[in-house]
Amino acid sequence: MAADWGRHAAERLAALAECSAPGPGVTRLPFTPEHRAALDLLTGWMEAAGLSVRLDAAGTLIARREGPPGAPTFLLGSHQDSVREGGGFDGIMGVVLPLVALEKLAADGVDLPFAVEVLAFADEEGVRFPTALLGPRALAGTFDPAVLEMQDAGGVRLRDAMAGFGLEPDAIAGLARDPASVLGYLETHIEQGPVLEAEGQALGVVTAICGIERHPVVISGETGHAGTLPMHMRRDALVGAAALITEVDRMARATPGLLGTVGTLDLAPGAVNAVPREVRTMVELRAPDDAVREEAGAALHRFAGALGAEKGLGIEIHRSYHQPAAPCDPVLTGGLVAAVQAGGGTGLTLPSGATHDASAIADLCPIAMLFVRCRGGVSHRPEEHASAADMGAAVAAICAFLEKSAG
Amino acid sequence: MAADWGRHAAERLAALAECSAPGPGVTRLPFTPEHRAALDLLTGWMEAAGLSVRLDAAGTLIARREGPPGAPTFLLGSHQDSVREGGGFDGIMGVVLPLVALEKLAADGVDLPFAVEVLAFADEEGVRFPTALLGPRALAGTFDPAVLEMQDAGGVRLRDAMAGFGLEPDAIAGLARDPASVLGYLETHIEQGPVLEAEGQALGVVTAICGIERHPVVISGETGHAGTLPMHMRRDALVGAAALITEVDRMARATPGLLGTVGTLDLAPGAVNAVPREVRTMVELRAPDDAVREEAGAALHRFAGALGAEKGLGIEIHRSYHQPAAPCDPVLTGGLVAAVQAGGGTGLTLPSGATHDASAIADLCPIAMLFVRCRGGVSHRPEEHASAADMGAAVAAICAFLEKSAG
Repeated sequence: MAADWGRHAAERLAALAECSAPGPGVTRLPFTPEHRAALDLLTGWMEAAGLSVRLDAAGTLIARREGPPGAPTFLLGSHQDSVREGGGFDGIMGVVLPLVALEKLAADGVDLPFAVEVLAFADEEGVRFPTALLGPRALAGTFDPAVLEMQDAGGVRLRDAMAGFGLEPDAIAGLARDPASVLGYLETHIEQGPVLEAEGQALGVVTAICGIERHPVVISGETGHAGTLPMHMRRDALVGAAALITEVDRMARATPGLLGTVGTLDLAPGAVNAVPREVRTMVELRAPDDAVREEAGAALHRFAGALGAEKGLGIEIHRSYHQPAAPCDPVLTGGLVAAVQAGGGTGLTLPSGATHDASAIADLCPIAMLFVRCRGGVSHRPEEHASAADMGAAVAAICAFLEKSAG
Repeated sequence: MAADWGRHAAERLAALAECSAPGPGVTRLPFTPEHRAALDLLTGWMEAAGLSVRLDAAGTLIARREGPPGAPTFLLGSHQDSVREGGGFDGIMGVVLPLVALEKLAADGVDLPFAVEVLAFADEEGVRFPTALLGPRALAGTFDPAVLEMQDAGGVRLRDAMAGFGLEPDAIAGLARDPASVLGYLETHIEQGPVLEAEGQALGVVTAICGIERHPVVISGETGHAGTLPMHMRRDALVGAAALITEVDRMARATPGLLGTVGTLDLAPGAVNAVPREVRTMVELRAPDDAVREEAGAALHRFAGALGAEKGLGIEIHRSYHQPAAPCDPVLTGGLVAAVQAGGGTGLTLPSGATHDASAIADLCPIAMLFVRCRGGVSHRPEEHASAADMGAAVAAICAFLEKSAG
């Protein structure tokens, strides 16, 4: 039976994947005809499931299952948008599975002592406009109207894109929910990593959404002819960068929960026979525990200072960006673990290294996240895939969670 | 008096620097109007000095001071060409200073028991055509006629460029000298490095022209999301590259005479939040001792093999290019040290990390090289500079060498 609900979800996701700009995979940016087509499909299924459907001023499609009069609401959802040439699961699966779960609960004749809403947020990836999380921020009351003036690559302001989509941007400020009216928020998402596959688990429960910080680095040495500058006179920027990269990796491997990545590196002058004069790079640190991340950032700066002095290099480093971690609610998370275990899973827990709509909803109410295994750990690519069986297990876990733990 | 001959040389080099294509610094490529203008200036000075002047079939300008009948010849010279937007000293100074030295010997009434030729080779930098050292290879009998079919960026064949310059490419094969007729070759060149400046010496004597080898490296790991791929599951190509760069630097610093440089690095996918999948880079090794260089190359391959196994990375490395070292002749070099010391220098010796015309002439006769201090170790740039005083010291050393040691 789980497999049937999973196949049902897979068919819907296949139909939604057709709501895409041309090209490989899925490209569905916010406030576009593709976005409209996806909402039309979702609306039809939601209404057929007996839910009341509306589109709020921030472009969030909301399907509501009423509860007893005056009862609070439990929220479930994720985002409808994709990256360019992305896949058919990241985001949108977190809209479809809760909807299927509500269909299953109805089919099973289950009553709930609270209302439930399934949310399809417009924009989480931040691909079209240099901002994201409009919908969840509106609900949490943290929306900054200044972002409405931001433009996409074609010079279209966010405000105008939304108005053209039939929305009322100036009404967003009125969308903030009363925290007392909201029980919590559950987001279901593909893992976007390899852990569940490696552990042989369909489902995992998220402990926290990691905080992130980024540190641009400029290492300045001196160039010279590779044949005429003696080794003892060299101040080689790339040799300095190599030491920094090695230390970031060492530190992250030695520190539980910490992720450290150097993903870009540009060097000058960049000739086979020239000692590198300058390297520009970027260190990214993530951790579910802010104190661990902050200490790693401070240690990185201390290391860079000592390295510059040791090698005679100028090393400029500063923290250009940081975002605190969003811990998941222990009670909801415990209930979700129990729901996963009820379906035969181990209830494996793991942090989420990526940001999600839940990061913003955390300002409104307790959050929980359910991860679904994805093939090869791949996301943001056309090959992105979660199996019907795993999605069926997720539907069952969502149902069990709503019945036993969400209230 | 040394300063006077030095100023004389500086004035000539300033005039020759005007023989340049437009733009910053000096751009004088072979078989161009700028080349012709430089040869016209040199020819005038050479003839005024009482030398017989001719242009050989390879484009080498040769000024000859006759010796006793049947006496062998000592060769001095360097190249007339520059890199694009280069300086006024690299190469051409090694033509002007021997010419000034012959003027000084004549002024001093010195007889020599052998003939002397000053050579201005056409092309050492290899900037216009993908070949170089045409002139010295012709004299050494190592010229490969196949290079005549190579084309410049404008599609002009070397053969046609030479014919347009009034040369006879098919006569190059007849230029090879009889080794018995040649005593040796002395090349004077700016150091192109910082050692003489750091040691406070105007002049240095070269022990050997370093051999070179290059090793392209492709490091293959696996990409992943910087937030979702746990550290223990990563196979990060950049972390592997960092270990390789660190080892090249360590090995070169620990091995006397060895120079090791990584000057280029390209990574993919190259995003702040993506673990690097692939790094392409290049290791260059140079040493005056071929055995030292060959062992370093072998050690590099062993290190790469162990590194790939340790980190789960694919590492492809091979030696794509190598050129043996050209040791300078011990007897000529000893004479040159004595000549430098006679002028008050310490007679500091050092290897040449860069290739020179002497590398090719080494196939014909014993070679020696005199390095002149250059400001800031800079070459191949408009700021390239050697002082008149240092050039005066070089003229004196060349004269002393010819009088005492070249025969």
